[in-house]
Amino acid sequence: MKVIKGGVCAPQGFKASSGCCGIKKSKRDDLALLVSSAPCIAAGTFTLNKMRSGSVDLCEDRIKKSSPQAVIVNSGIANACCGKKELVGAQDVSGTAAKKLGLKKEMVLMCSTGVIGKPLPVGKIKKGLGSLVKGLSSKNGTGFSKAIMTTDTVNKEIAIEFEIDGKKVRLGGACKGSGMIYPNMATMLAFFTTDISIEKSALKSAFKESVDYSFNRITVDGDMSTNDTAIMFANSLAGNKCVRKNTKEYLEFKDALTYAAMVLAKKIVLDGEGATRFVRIYVKGAKTEKDASIVARSIANSSLVKTMIAGGDPNWGRVAASIGYSGVDVKKDKVDIYFGKDLVMKNGSETSAPRKRLEKLFKNKEIDIVVDIKMGRHCSWVWSCDLTKRYIEINSEYET
Amino acid sequence: MKVIKGGVCAPQGFKASSGCCGIKKSKRDDLALLVSSAPCIAAGTFTLNKMRSGSVDLCEDRIKKSSPQAVIVNSGIANACCGKKELVGAQDVSGTAAKKLGLKKEMVLMCSTGVIGKPLPVGKIKKGLGSLVKGLSSKNGTGFSKAIMTTDTVNKEIAIEFEIDGKKVRLGGACKGSGMIYPNMATMLAFFTTDISIEKSALKSAFKESVDYSFNRITVDGDMSTNDTAIMFANSLAGNKCVRKNTKEYLEFKDALTYAAMVLAKKIVLDGEGATRFVRIYVKGAKTEKDASIVARSIANSSLVKTMIAGGDPNWGRVAASIGYSGVDVKKDKVDIYFGKDLVMKNGSETSAPRKRLEKLFKNKEIDIVVDIKMGRHCSWVWSCDLTKRYIEINSEYET
Repeated sequence: MKVIKGGVCAPQGFKASSGCCGIKKSKRDDLALLVSSAPCIAAGTFTLNKMRSGSVDLCEDRIKKSSPQAVIVNSGIANACCGKKELVGAQDVSGTAAKKLGLKKEMVLMCSTGVIGKPLPVGKIKKGLGSLVKGLSSKNGTGFSKAIMTTDTVNKEIAIEFEIDGKKVRLGGACKGSGMIYPNMATMLAFFTTDISIEKSALKSAFKESVDYSFNRITVDGDMSTNDTAIMFANSLAGNKCVRKNTKEYLEFKDALTYAAMVLAKKIVLDGEGATRFVRIYVKGAKTEKDASIVARSIANSSLVKTMIAGGDPNWGRVAASIGYSGVDVKKDKVDIYFGKDLVMKNGSETSAPRKRLEKLFKNKEIDIVVDIKMGRHCSWVWSCDLTKRYIEINSEYET
Repeated sequence: MKVIKGGVCAPQGFKASSGCCGIKKSKRDDLALLVSSAPCIAAGTFTLNKMRSGSVDLCEDRIKKSSPQAVIVNSGIANACCGKKELVGAQDVSGTAAKKLGLKKEMVLMCSTGVIGKPLPVGKIKKGLGSLVKGLSSKNGTGFSKAIMTTDTVNKEIAIEFEIDGKKVRLGGACKGSGMIYPNMATMLAFFTTDISIEKSALKSAFKESVDYSFNRITVDGDMSTNDTAIMFANSLAGNKCVRKNTKEYLEFKDALTYAAMVLAKKIVLDGEGATRFVRIYVKGAKTEKDASIVARSIANSSLVKTMIAGGDPNWGRVAASIGYSGVDVKKDKVDIYFGKDLVMKNGSETSAPRKRLEKLFKNKEIDIVVDIKMGRHCSWVWSCDLTKRYIEINSEYET
């Protein structure tokens, strides 16, 4: 497996384009289009937020019922909390895109991201579609990844090449996300493309698992968005023998996909609003994997742990408190906490870990917190970032 | 019922004192003592945090098994995450205090608040106890409320007078709390005194209910402390006929106590670390009270809602998102949101509420957010505050 260039356009047969139709005040690109020239199978995971956008409804429905091969994305407006206008707008925009692309309407998906509560400027977007379709190119992967950004400070993409069944297969991905990031199903927008030939059920299960191991394990601020969507297209152009579930080839593909998803998920945390440090939280010794995950998320979402990391202070007492209120049964005289490789709390009490070394550790850009609750044999992990004044600035100065 | 002066020393027979034994670097008062001259019955509620302090263990055990009439409080060190030293230290300090007060050891409680993970400086505290006992006075209620502070910027006390059974009864209270505040059982330290005569079971149930309606409904940062404790002493000196459960007198007492607890709980939110605005979140139309409470807490703990309030931006979309991810079943086309009296989202969509009026509302020090999810007939509420850069400063610059 090697990392290559090209983002979502790296696999054979995928073209993308981007443009500005005037949704964002900043006049940055706010429309992006991704199309496969060949028929596809598609998979998706969607936000669990009950107030989710009509664009999400449209995607889930179309992926379930047909085989979409294109997606139009607008940034700047979430198309959420607008009642019936949400679905109508998404149908109208994607329908116009389908016509211009010469595809059936159910072949085109739509994703939206941005401010909640404002209706989609359907007219503006439709006007912008013409030049978007004209601009489609297999060299526009990076442009696509830029046009889907909102408060993101960097674009996020990945492409890899690997062999399946003696054939060269490529996989591309792009995502956006910076605030309102909390793991539960997909948490942001992410798009994956591949030219592998694979059964739909195999693609679906590999995709679900890779999302569970990546986007579902990150948190920036504990706020789950109304629009989180991760979508994957596979167009079979690599020419391999169609991959079936639970074969050696399936596992190879799943590993590659999980790798790509984890790279992109990490990019989201690193670009978390105001974030300056990346934190891996690993919890072991739990009765169940769910217990381990609850403890990890309790630590990751604690404002006091996040500000401690921002301040570079190895105050493990805050980690202990967040373990204690997670709701999971722990015994206070059995819990161990490690900062990096240093055991800082053993069986619920302070150790003699040298303060100076811990302070140095907390100056690193990446920090590991490992917790052993010694109640069982299961583990889980989550990735998080610190909470800084910049997060407050971004989100208190953000205007609707 | 009228509000009077005196804090915890307002009821007959209560004396308090405060002093500095050298726990805090700032040399501010860090020890406080509260004693009833007459025998008491006592009630308490305690943190649900599994990593809770040995001081909490001691209080819960003594309130269950005997009738304490004094409490020694240290601020600056939490006496948590220190293993066996926690309980031993609390027993040692409270035992010495008992001796000096001429009380049996199980008559004296101990509470601690401050940094987690450092052992109690038992020697220093015991040395300070002599002058504390000497300084006991019925005029020291305010000194007591100041000595229990940590990051609090103001002391918090209340005293009221009301009639029960033709007798004048007084009730006093003091509390501390500013960060690591999240509602679940008691959330901070709070102390109540009264000279009423009341049955122990009646005191227990009235106290539990008043805490449920006050301290259990506030959140500053969603972090539940290892040391939260609320304690109440009643010494019968008012001379009323002993109050029994579910009588008219019981309800009158419970109302007075709930009022006092709500006043103190509000003071904690107003003094929330970095807080500039007080927010009342009221959720109605839920299938159960628990559902309403979950939705209210989801809104109250959302970093995006809290920063929106800090920024004074009426961005109701963030409230909608936090309702959607609460885990409670809601229908997106049935949810209403009010800011103050203005309906800003009706059945999941924007209304024509004038933006200028909302912006003006968001400049107020106190803001009401009302949500109707129209799924049933139950309601609940929670009090919260905004999240500002000052919170980050306090908690990232706080050093262990």
